[in-house]
Amino acid sequence: MLEHEIYQLLESNGFRVPKYKQFTINDMPDIDFYPIALKIESPKIVHKSEYGGVKTDIIDYIGYKKAHDEIVQNIKNYGIDLDKNDYFIASNMIYGEELFCGVIDDSVFGTIILFGKGGVLLELYKDICYIDIVANEAEIINAINLTRISKLFGEFRNSKHNIETVVGFIKKIQEFIKKSKNIKELDLNPIILNSEGLTIVDARIKLGETKIPDEVSRKRENSFFDNSSVAVIGASSDPNKVGYAIAKNTLSFMGEVFFVNKNGGELFEKKCFKDVADIESNIDIAIIAVPSMAVIGEIQKLIGKNIKNIVIISAGFKEVGNFIAERKIKDLAKLYNINIIGPNCLGYYESTKNLNATFATKNAIAGDIALLAQSGAVLSALMDKAYDFNIGFSHIVSFGNMIDLNFAQTIDALQNEPSCKYISIYAEGIQDGKAFLQSIRNSKKPIFVYKTGKSELAKKAAFSHTGNLSGNYAIFKGLLESVGVNMVDNIEALILAPQKRPNNILIVTNAGGPATILTDYIIDRKQSLYVLNEANIKLLDEVLPNNWSKNNPIDIIGDARSNRFEATLEIIKEFEADLVFVIVTPQFMTDALSIAKVLHKASQTKLIIPIMLGGESLKDAKIFFKKEKMVYFESLQEATSFL
Amino acid sequence: MLEHEIYQLLESNGFRVPKYKQFTINDMPDIDFYPIALKIESPKIVHKSEYGGVKTDIIDYIGYKKAHDEIVQNIKNYGIDLDKNDYFIASNMIYGEELFCGVIDDSVFGTIILFGKGGVLLELYKDICYIDIVANEAEIINAINLTRISKLFGEFRNSKHNIETVVGFIKKIQEFIKKSKNIKELDLNPIILNSEGLTIVDARIKLGETKIPDEVSRKRENSFFDNSSVAVIGASSDPNKVGYAIAKNTLSFMGEVFFVNKNGGELFEKKCFKDVADIESNIDIAIIAVPSMAVIGEIQKLIGKNIKNIVIISAGFKEVGNFIAERKIKDLAKLYNINIIGPNCLGYYESTKNLNATFATKNAIAGDIALLAQSGAVLSALMDKAYDFNIGFSHIVSFGNMIDLNFAQTIDALQNEPSCKYISIYAEGIQDGKAFLQSIRNSKKPIFVYKTGKSELAKKAAFSHTGNLSGNYAIFKGLLESVGVNMVDNIEALILAPQKRPNNILIVTNAGGPATILTDYIIDRKQSLYVLNEANIKLLDEVLPNNWSKNNPIDIIGDARSNRFEATLEIIKEFEADLVFVIVTPQFMTDALSIAKVLHKASQTKLIIPIMLGGESLKDAKIFFKKEKMVYFESLQEATSFL
Repeated sequence: MLEHEIYQLLESNGFRVPKYKQFTINDMPDIDFYPIALKIESPKIVHKSEYGGVKTDIIDYIGYKKAHDEIVQNIKNYGIDLDKNDYFIASNMIYGEELFCGVIDDSVFGTIILFGKGGVLLELYKDICYIDIVANEAEIINAINLTRISKLFGEFRNSKHNIETVVGFIKKIQEFIKKSKNIKELDLNPIILNSEGLTIVDARIKLGETKIPDEVSRKRENSFFDNSSVAVIGASSDPNKVGYAIAKNTLSFMGEVFFVNKNGGELFEKKCFKDVADIESNIDIAIIAVPSMAVIGEIQKLIGKNIKNIVIISAGFKEVGNFIAERKIKDLAKLYNINIIGPNCLGYYESTKNLNATFATKNAIAGDIALLAQSGAVLSALMDKAYDFNIGFSHIVSFGNMIDLNFAQTIDALQNEPSCKYISIYAEGIQDGKAFLQSIRNSKKPIFVYKTGKSELAKKAAFSHTGNLSGNYAIFKGLLESVGVNMVDNIEALILAPQKRPNNILIVTNAGGPATILTDYIIDRKQSLYVLNEANIKLLDEVLPNNWSKNNPIDIIGDARSNRFEATLEIIKEFEADLVFVIVTPQFMTDALSIAKVLHKASQTKLIIPIMLGGESLKDAKIFFKKEKMVYFESLQEATSFL
Repeated sequence: MLEHEIYQLLESNGFRVPKYKQFTINDMPDIDFYPIALKIESPKIVHKSEYGGVKTDIIDYIGYKKAHDEIVQNIKNYGIDLDKNDYFIASNMIYGEELFCGVIDDSVFGTIILFGKGGVLLELYKDICYIDIVANEAEIINAINLTRISKLFGEFRNSKHNIETVVGFIKKIQEFIKKSKNIKELDLNPIILNSEGLTIVDARIKLGETKIPDEVSRKRENSFFDNSSVAVIGASSDPNKVGYAIAKNTLSFMGEVFFVNKNGGELFEKKCFKDVADIESNIDIAIIAVPSMAVIGEIQKLIGKNIKNIVIISAGFKEVGNFIAERKIKDLAKLYNINIIGPNCLGYYESTKNLNATFATKNAIAGDIALLAQSGAVLSALMDKAYDFNIGFSHIVSFGNMIDLNFAQTIDALQNEPSCKYISIYAEGIQDGKAFLQSIRNSKKPIFVYKTGKSELAKKAAFSHTGNLSGNYAIFKGLLESVGVNMVDNIEALILAPQKRPNNILIVTNAGGPATILTDYIIDRKQSLYVLNEANIKLLDEVLPNNWSKNNPIDIIGDARSNRFEATLEIIKEFEADLVFVIVTPQFMTDALSIAKVLHKASQTKLIIPIMLGGESLKDAKIFFKKEKMVYFESLQEATSFL
């Protein structure tokens, strides 16, 4: 498209463009809107600037004439002959802040809008945000406020134009794209913001199919979470098989439990059916842990039992190139309206009826976090850590290859589960970005997300791992933040952040330096330190040496032994602090093991997290903590990573 | 200063300013340099814009006349009467990239230059760098290249102006400030960069004393590091006193050792002198560990022994408000040309003659890092960690209250120490910033710095700790980076970064997900992963199941037991990778303790760092590592923090 055609298209869709005049190369009509830019407009010349085909900041007729002649000469010098099909376009120069707006077709999220600082600074500062093509006004505002340039809106150089101007512009872009249906990519740069509002000065358009999904994903008739009977297919008496662990873990289910093993027999004092068909009643949920080639046969048998939900533990599908079997399972799920999680997963846990259908070695504790994960190993590490921290789950879903039930549908289903208060997601790659965003939009429960695949190399690793494309991290993060997700930067935060984010942190230390560093990290994480009041200080004065710090961090001085730690903790347990970090450094008199015992005792009545800064000389203390299952850290940075 | 006076001053110092014309309010002379900005220039009106006293983008006489009349009317409306002492200034509008340059008087570094992106975006992007007023060309270029806007120089919109234009400008600023001697602060914003070069469009100047130090700090005649005899003043036979630990640690010194204790007697089969005066020979270095009130007396006695160097371990000075004693010690040091470190410090270690004059509980290993620290506790934690990692030191200096010998002088002295290859500094606050920069500039050895006090709250903590002001972190970091320092973001990196930064990292894992995360962190840290070649893959194929990842990260699949780990490590020990991270997650079949033993054995021939992702189920493995003093990590983020 030529420049004047784009201007016309934009104008007819309600966008402001500069005043302009198009004329043939032999014309030189009067112009009444100086200053102007003069450009050649010819299908023969794509990169105008490189051919000397652009002149800017022309303020009068003399300059206009000069520019006109120079451009003609420049192009002649390149051996290009201009004729009656070639034009000039003179456009009014507009001064102000340069902004950018683009539309792209993302492989994961479909058509999305990019908006931010424009001009040559677009590439330098990458100060842009991402907006879904169907985003509502609140999301648009959220997204814009993630950019730094947004601070200019509202008080921009005495102009009356504020964020509404920009929001209105984005909405107009949404309408434009939806209406035109044939715009694949759009690149508006720069758009000038000044007291007149927003004017699109330069634009490129790439035609093609716009992808705006009408329908999201398959509606679910049955809840995955509501089950009264479970069958473990592949239950085993061999402790080296996952079928053994799953069978054992399901015993505590408050519903009917059936074991199936082709050899029959008995397991945990229960009968093993030789075939699932032998079970007389219907089955709500089945856990399949048989070799991959036997999985489809088992599913077909389960259909006869009115099966609603299936968890396929078995590996050996997409991740090893076996796409055909996956495709078949997917079709069965759709045809018979079955919810399937897996294959190649760790299993499923639901707290209300205590259904633990995982092969994790540790029992999950009931709690209020629903944890959804694409990696069984990350999940199992987090379950282990949660056990240490005494953090509980309402639901755990290990998605494995995620052939059927996905994040979006699970988020939807969790809305009706009273036991779930928070949703934490470990994502490697998602497929239907639009549905994912829609489910998050609709969620009444706070959502925390960790996403891998930030770097290109990690993307490769993720691909060989789950076979899903990881997509662009910046887009993923930007879009999710615009719909209100808390993006976390380490996996531990998925279990720690929902509940443990403390408001008032106290630091007790036997050394000033590390406490200063810890304070830095805490402030970096936007958390606050408890402020000691006069009464607090008075109480501490009684048990601490004169030269204690008199503020938080409470520096109880390097010669502190366990009795001083004990006296301090006894006093501060009454303070209104949610969390106490205790820094122990090995100094000359430090009785680390005794201090560890004091901390462990005090942790019965207050949330205390020791930070043991040192190796060899604190070894016994650390071994003590490990034995007592008390969580501690060995570095200041790590200790604050979940805040 | 009025605008035209500033323009004159800048022009006379070789800076380009726009064409301008100043005239009284009743004049309206012809102007031959459109487009223009027209501004009122009157001592009665400070904030011109707010009074409607500025009009921009005027392109012809008609606009000029209109602007003139409107400004007069606007000001009249505010009830201000203009008279013959009030002027207009018409200046040529200049279009291009807006830059910023400022000069400030920093409490730590004195007069410094700020440079970066200007205009309204200065505050938004804070894309600025910091340059010492005496910085040389290389430093200026280093600093400028730390900004993102620097990418525009050289290829800026077909202009021939490159970074030299900007460097020349900064040099001119340096000259201008040095010459004028009465400029305290300067604020040039915007400076316009276009094909004409740099033009200062707007400027504010604050007069006052410019602080450019002539002389740096006191020259040292004696090296702190060259000692043939040591006296421990306050050597004690009571194991609960630091004087005991220091006496014990000094025994291994390859020079003469004297113990002094007012009660006399014997210690470690050596005579204790009752008084330092009783020692017959001269003493090179004395370690003082007596109560604070006795310190000055001991120093006075040491003067009679031709003492060159003193380490004051004793606390009870500035940190508890005792400034007078510190002042006295400082004066003595100057008068008798003594180097003093401390007071309130952990001590001093030098590897060549094996002088360990610290009260650290662990022996330091000889190596090539000189570690200088302002916090004894941080130092002791790092020494402990270094011992675990088998990392050695050439020198360790604990500065405590730093009343005499400082970072700058120590860096200078280390230049002549062949044993020192790297210098690592833990800084809380420094006093003479100019000298510090100068020493770094002169250093032939790479310098690593961790600086606390990033946040205001942390600054408060640091103040109550060592009594030094922490200063502005951004300035500190910017200036240090401009002179080539490696700023690190965690204290562990001070000991790990100099030597252990690996070029080729291998990841062996029993789970794909965590390996993906680890890859992200490694790439974030700008490190590289080893790339497996065909031969490597072929070798691994022989011992691994079919579905192993076939690339790095080497995913040996979730059912891997210790024998598979062993076979893998046996093969990769020949690969040209500097470091192998082994991720162990608790999966169903994972025999964690056996795997730990395999890793420990393999670590004898290859640098292996296990990452144990999980709590309870990996407990025994972790206890094993602790007992064997093998370094491992429990989180992916932490494991990469030193890279």
